Amino acid sequence: MELALIERIARRSTLRPGTSVGIGDDAAVLALGDDALASHDMLVEGVHFRRSTTSLRDLGAKAVAVNISDIAAMGGVPVAVLVGLGVPDGVDADEVDELYAGMDEMAGAYGVTIAGGDVTSAPLLILAVTALGRAVPGVAPLRRSGARAGDLLCVTGPLGAAAAGLLLLEDPSLAVGVEEHDDLVAAHRRPFPRTDAGAVLAAGGATAMLDLSDGLGLDARRLALASGLRARVDLDAIPVAAGVAGAAAATGRDPRLLAATGGEDYELLASVPPGRLPALRERLGGGLHVVGDLVTGTPGVELLDSDGAPIAAERLGWEHGA
Amino acid sequence: MELALIERIARRSTLRPGTSVGIGDDAAVLALGDDALASHDMLVEGVHFRRSTTSLRDLGAKAVAVNISDIAAMGGVPVAVLVGLGVPDGVDADEVDELYAGMDEMAGAYGVTIAGGDVTSAPLLILAVTALGRAVPGVAPLRRSGARAGDLLCVTGPLGAAAAGLLLLEDPSLAVGVEEHDDLVAAHRRPFPRTDAGAVLAAGGATAMLDLSDGLGLDARRLALASGLRARVDLDAIPVAAGVAGAAAATGRDPRLLAATGGEDYELLASVPPGRLPALRERLGGGLHVVGDLVTGTPGVELLDSDGAPIAAERLGWEHGA
Repeated sequence: MELALIERIARRSTLRPGTSVGIGDDAAVLALGDDALASHDMLVEGVHFRRSTTSLRDLGAKAVAVNISDIAAMGGVPVAVLVGLGVPDGVDADEVDELYAGMDEMAGAYGVTIAGGDVTSAPLLILAVTALGRAVPGVAPLRRSGARAGDLLCVTGPLGAAAAGLLLLEDPSLAVGVEEHDDLVAAHRRPFPRTDAGAVLAAGGATAMLDLSDGLGLDARRLALASGLRARVDLDAIPVAAGVAGAAAATGRDPRLLAATGGEDYELLASVPPGRLPALRERLGGGLHVVGDLVTGTPGVELLDSDGAPIAAERLGWEHGA
Repeated sequence: MELALIERIARRSTLRPGTSVGIGDDAAVLALGDDALASHDMLVEGVHFRRSTTSLRDLGAKAVAVNISDIAAMGGVPVAVLVGLGVPDGVDADEVDELYAGMDEMAGAYGVTIAGGDVTSAPLLILAVTALGRAVPGVAPLRRSGARAGDLLCVTGPLGAAAAGLLLLEDPSLAVGVEEHDDLVAAHRRPFPRTDAGAVLAAGGATAMLDLSDGLGLDARRLALASGLRARVDLDAIPVAAGVAGAAAATGRDPRLLAATGGEDYELLASVPPGRLPALRERLGGGLHVVGDLVTGTPGVELLDSDGAPIAAERLGWEHGA
């Protein structure tokens, strides 16, 4: 089964620019240069997804997307992914094909090759995706730790859609417009990493960056801790995605908090010196929103309400020691 | 637990040459050049190992070793590994430390950095290791598919030790010398990839190469199929590791067959034009053994007994459609 699967997969693998050897040899051969970027995520059935609520095609697409997003978060260009796949009894080769079709749809949208990996039997479905990329020539990879006091905290797009989409999947009876419903669910199922904005921000003077996987609040905290600063996020300044207000109202939530804590938007969060902001906004067509700033003080994050008072951690639903 | 684990691991991670950003950012940053090499393996508890028979330290070391071996098999220099880790309840942080200690022992022996990865809870222990490397400057990565009719099939060292070691672990009462016993078990638990020989072979005119993970017979078949040739392996020419004869005799096996089919030796198998052999042997201190050749004909492999007759596939224990 495994050899047959690998051959089946190899036949459908498309070599895209930057990859000279793909699936089928001991290792892939890639043009990554001397600021090569590498990131890895493991998704385990029952922990990160359930087959009952995710199509394999969407699952494959999302697994690739979240890894490409890590390359975007360094300001880099994604080149290839390697896919480790654990396949349980009961998932047949056609279903594995569906999974790879979803992966390759997302990979192809970014010019990325599925360049290798491993297929093995396992008691449950496991996806272990490694994304590999290169830096834009002359632009150093952008870390989390370079922010300076006085920098502005900026996000590359509206937030909350993926979290609202998850609410709708959990309770399809929630009342929002049909078009918004579909957009929100799509945002949850198929995030589109912001490699475009990442490269612009890295080249244009942003000082630190990461992608919004766990929510603005927690991810701003990460950037702040890595940089030894305090992040102040202004709740009223967060751009809230269309439809989020409806899903929030239907579930008794504050849409700003849903956008600030929901996670999985895969927009980028960057620290930007104020003098760099106008040029960056122009290059990003306005798609750069100031949501707060970074100051000296106890490293961490605070989310400020309309009256300027910090929101209590309990209201944010942060259980994990944030 | 996950964040604490990641921080614990990050504290012990050593940045070795070629890695400028390791664990803790969105992606690692590595000097890999434009013939970057990337390989991935997934190991799943109950499928590839059992915690009852493997120490976590040895498991970590071996998981890194087999991936470094894939870089060696391309003639490359390993630079970093990324480790995806699924941790079940009942494996505590000290045990994860043991696993990483084993990984870092092996990584350190090859100048390799544990540069990133992912830690997640999972119902069983999962290791997903990605090895990243670079080509030796001026030396193209060596694929499986470049062999030519008339090339000699060569291996870089004696075979069968890992397979004999596994027999001894399965039945400790088997009678072999104590010193050989320990060496054979060590060969099974801690293979040492032949990056040294791989680089010499790639630079010195070998035409195709892979590492011996599944046994000389099956791996010679892979090289032959990739190159569109027929491999002929002379059983009497296989260098059999010390102690293998004893373990084979104690279990009623032909030591040559154990060496030819046992797997997990992680020596290299290369095709070498006859004219290149003397210089390569000299550079490898004699550590290059001719075990057969490649000819035109139906692509595949045959293992020839002392009388020149092919061994029947059933005697080789090949169930998987070889």
